[in-house]
Amino acid sequence: MTAPQNPLLNDRDVDFLLYEVLDAPRLCALPHFADHARDTFDLYLQSCRRFAREVLFPTYRPVDEAPPRFQDGAISVHPLLKQVFQPMVDLGVLTAARPAAVGGQQLPLVVATLAGAYLMAANLSACGYLGLTTGAAHLIEAFGDDALKTTFMTRMYAGEWTGTMALTEPQAGSSLADVQARATPTDAGHYLVRGSKIFISGGDHDLTENIVHLTLARIDGAPPGIKGVSLFAVPKRRIEEGRLVPNDVEVAGMIHKIGWRGLPSLSLSFGEKDDCHGYLVGRPHQGVAYMFQMMNEARIMVGVNAAATASVAYHEALGYALTRRQGRPLGAKDPTAPQVPILEHADVRRMLLRQKAIVEGSLALVATTARCADLAAHAAGAEERERAARLLDLLTPIAKTFPAEKGFEANALAIQVHGGYGYSSEHLPEAWLRDQKLNTIHEGTTGIQSLDLLGRKVVAGGGAALAALGEEIQQAIGRAARAGVEPAWGERLAASLALLGELTAHLGGAGMRGDVEGMLRHSADYLELTAVIVVAWQWLAMAAAAREGLARGAPPAGFYEGKLCAAQYWFATELPRVEALAALCRSGEDSYARMQPAWF
Amino acid sequence: MTAPQNPLLNDRDVDFLLYEVLDAPRLCALPHFADHARDTFDLYLQSCRRFAREVLFPTYRPVDEAPPRFQDGAISVHPLLKQVFQPMVDLGVLTAARPAAVGGQQLPLVVATLAGAYLMAANLSACGYLGLTTGAAHLIEAFGDDALKTTFMTRMYAGEWTGTMALTEPQAGSSLADVQARATPTDAGHYLVRGSKIFISGGDHDLTENIVHLTLARIDGAPPGIKGVSLFAVPKRRIEEGRLVPNDVEVAGMIHKIGWRGLPSLSLSFGEKDDCHGYLVGRPHQGVAYMFQMMNEARIMVGVNAAATASVAYHEALGYALTRRQGRPLGAKDPTAPQVPILEHADVRRMLLRQKAIVEGSLALVATTARCADLAAHAAGAEERERAARLLDLLTPIAKTFPAEKGFEANALAIQVHGGYGYSSEHLPEAWLRDQKLNTIHEGTTGIQSLDLLGRKVVAGGGAALAALGEEIQQAIGRAARAGVEPAWGERLAASLALLGELTAHLGGAGMRGDVEGMLRHSADYLELTAVIVVAWQWLAMAAAAREGLARGAPPAGFYEGKLCAAQYWFATELPRVEALAALCRSGEDSYARMQPAWF
Repeated sequence: MTAPQNPLLNDRDVDFLLYEVLDAPRLCALPHFADHARDTFDLYLQSCRRFAREVLFPTYRPVDEAPPRFQDGAISVHPLLKQVFQPMVDLGVLTAARPAAVGGQQLPLVVATLAGAYLMAANLSACGYLGLTTGAAHLIEAFGDDALKTTFMTRMYAGEWTGTMALTEPQAGSSLADVQARATPTDAGHYLVRGSKIFISGGDHDLTENIVHLTLARIDGAPPGIKGVSLFAVPKRRIEEGRLVPNDVEVAGMIHKIGWRGLPSLSLSFGEKDDCHGYLVGRPHQGVAYMFQMMNEARIMVGVNAAATASVAYHEALGYALTRRQGRPLGAKDPTAPQVPILEHADVRRMLLRQKAIVEGSLALVATTARCADLAAHAAGAEERERAARLLDLLTPIAKTFPAEKGFEANALAIQVHGGYGYSSEHLPEAWLRDQKLNTIHEGTTGIQSLDLLGRKVVAGGGAALAALGEEIQQAIGRAARAGVEPAWGERLAASLALLGELTAHLGGAGMRGDVEGMLRHSADYLELTAVIVVAWQWLAMAAAAREGLARGAPPAGFYEGKLCAAQYWFATELPRVEALAALCRSGEDSYARMQPAWF
Repeated sequence: MTAPQNPLLNDRDVDFLLYEVLDAPRLCALPHFADHARDTFDLYLQSCRRFAREVLFPTYRPVDEAPPRFQDGAISVHPLLKQVFQPMVDLGVLTAARPAAVGGQQLPLVVATLAGAYLMAANLSACGYLGLTTGAAHLIEAFGDDALKTTFMTRMYAGEWTGTMALTEPQAGSSLADVQARATPTDAGHYLVRGSKIFISGGDHDLTENIVHLTLARIDGAPPGIKGVSLFAVPKRRIEEGRLVPNDVEVAGMIHKIGWRGLPSLSLSFGEKDDCHGYLVGRPHQGVAYMFQMMNEARIMVGVNAAATASVAYHEALGYALTRRQGRPLGAKDPTAPQVPILEHADVRRMLLRQKAIVEGSLALVATTARCADLAAHAAGAEERERAARLLDLLTPIAKTFPAEKGFEANALAIQVHGGYGYSSEHLPEAWLRDQKLNTIHEGTTGIQSLDLLGRKVVAGGGAALAALGEEIQQAIGRAARAGVEPAWGERLAASLALLGELTAHLGGAGMRGDVEGMLRHSADYLELTAVIVVAWQWLAMAAAAREGLARGAPPAGFYEGKLCAAQYWFATELPRVEALAALCRSGEDSYARMQPAWF
């Protein structure tokens, strides 16, 4: 028996999320989505699925094996990427969730996100170029003037030019307050930009004729810190007399990344010849605030990447475990009996069920987060939009971090299921492990997400976001009870939610009393605790929908049974961890606060 | 400030383990070690340290970058490996812990182990050839006749020939009952061996003129299952008329491993021309029992590899965090103030203290296990030897698994501390992460170790091993109390130990009642729980020794303070997890037992 073809994501699970758990078609009652219905969702999903499986996935291994080359100051990417780029543009990936006014399909983000997850699972480097382009164009859409929109945004949404985010500098890393790139105003309206950026994904390539770097820099005389940072559109080539001419943006070096090997990560030099034109986006000194739009979108996208990368590896491991025969069941005494598929061994099933719980929990989490983004932008009333926006803010660091951290564990388990074969580059799981590791680092490390969640998001608006989360969870508990889900699960989730509320009040109180360091000391543990609860919410909602499906006899029953098993796993194995985590956060345990550099 | 040179292991920590925690010189009161004393220990340690840092570590990156080549049926390894092999033999690595009667230095294994950890941290592939050779020669030493010893063992201990363990077959994987390689007796005394083996580390190379494969095969007519498997010495070249001639062992293929890239992993074909001579080691059909000697040694060695690989990455991350400046302390409002080393950030300190807790806890665990092996072989009375042997049996699966599983996490944290730089192959942490992943797979996967611990080790001898572990832990608790260690730690450890005892009795009872599947369902969780407790024991012993050091004013005080911080971390962060783990094991939670293949 040969292993089945890797489906990347389980179609039944995606349909389940959209139509049974989240009721995505209900969004079509909102004016913004009025032209859509389930059939238009399915049309887009189906074309992405098919393209991902038939065209994109076969490019993954060759692209991983032959990273971009840096020669004569320019980057050339794998020829296969050139073959798939335009078809991906034609698929509508760049503008699926953008409004018709800018040429988009105006699909809900929740639909675009799950469709995009197939593509990411197939080849996440290829998706990187498009995701960055959409994010960068959206920044200009939101904050740029008409000239910028005409020149840049339109071409970017059309896939003629790509975009990047150019934030990080060698001396500053995650510290945007230390951005040193400079921008000097000129009489002609543009600025002259000078500076060095590093880790710029897609910062150069030969897929399109031009690239637009959304760049943070300081206007001469700007105040220090993040309040003096402005946002500029800085193209690789600028238009002069109707022609593209070089804009003094040079590739200074290429980082040899261990994964995402189709998407180059570059050091760029701006303005070494004092001839780099940048165009201010929005108002001066608002760059970091603007950039947060792109960063927040990118953070959710990282969560989707992470979930997709864990998903494709999970399906690979599942296929292997179904077909690889080895050993016999516990207690089988006859050594001449045929060996059984390793999926028969309890520990292999444990590893696969854990992967399933992480993968499908992550997909549900990022889908729920995307749906919040849809409501935050397009819900009927201002109040509902505000509530959704708060929830979106709260969920973003979790949707970014949980799939990345636990996805890494799931990817390691996919190797483990493959045994010795998993340790060789003849099999793909090791490549996905390498890909996954980036997701805890880029777009804000796990440490930064943790500080963001506890130091900012849960305390914002007097705890309004946490209250909204509580309401959502209570709704899921009610639905689960009505559907006949094991009552203990809802009770445990309610208790965990209460624990989270008390803990947050306790820590927030410490912050109010001025002990910010004590409040934030266990922010990483706090994020983990919150993520376990938020994912338990996802699993309870899925369990409710599964029970509903079983009750109405929807096929296949086995799919729903599997959902209930994975939910059981989460409630039995993960949720009980919250008590120790909460005690730890509350204890103010100070070992690493006390630890001096010389003591290590 | 440039990062300090990577010390591989902390010398002060190694001395602390040997002389303050474990009192290794006390072993010299035993007749077997009577010729040794602290100064001979130090001599060997010092020469290994120096060689590891000055000669071996510089070979790591080039060897990782250029794996062995397979050409014309033979493997050629990196030239640097040829340069370091003989010096490592001269260092005494092969026979440090073997008796003088076979040319060894007769050092305690606990000393040889920690000295070897420096070498492994420097370049674990290079160490692989020697570790396998010692293990294979020791099999012949223990079970072979004089002719085998003269022909094979002597040359292997001298480093003239190397050894391998040839167990795994393509169709059998971890299932030794399914070994199919055949051995046909001849009138000349040797056997003709035929069969295929896979994943044979060091199965071919050009470091020495010959290689001896300790090979499992079935003698014609042998019973099925593991009771029909015998052990053979099968050389790559055999001696005929005083000359080495080919012995019909062919390299069938090379696996492209993602780490340990200096040590080839090969498929070997034995006897394709019906001319492969094998020499029976010991009695027929005892092969698996014999091989367990080598496997058990190899399992401890894997734990040492894992601890060493986590250690070198930890020290690299620590050096980076001390020198890389980025951002400012929480609440620092002045964006023009200089940036601080990232070690100042609480979350970076957390990641490093976690690495320290894992690394030093792992080193203490493998050292303690090695000391058990010393006592099991050489303690004065039969009873003490038996008790030590039981403890050794119990600790082996933990000493193999904990450093591998948690070391992988520590290695990932070393990347995380490096941020975006950690994701590039210009920095070394990614290479150590790749190396580390093998350690949860080879020499028995984590799943197999878990079944071994719960299904065999803790129930053996009516629970005698667990009782011995309890006594050891109680001794550490007493020492900690006398030394003035925080009393709550000892109390918590005692309570955890009691919990482990109750749980084990509960699970053992289920097994006695015939519910073996229920007993073993959570064996992976059981191993994790036991490991958390066993490592807490190590940290309590270290805390006691640290308090004693502080009390007598031994320098440097900061070293001891760091030990106490890491111990505090373990007791506050890890030990409290045991309750949820025990509840899970006891619950018989059956999600993955219920899960059907079609439900995934």
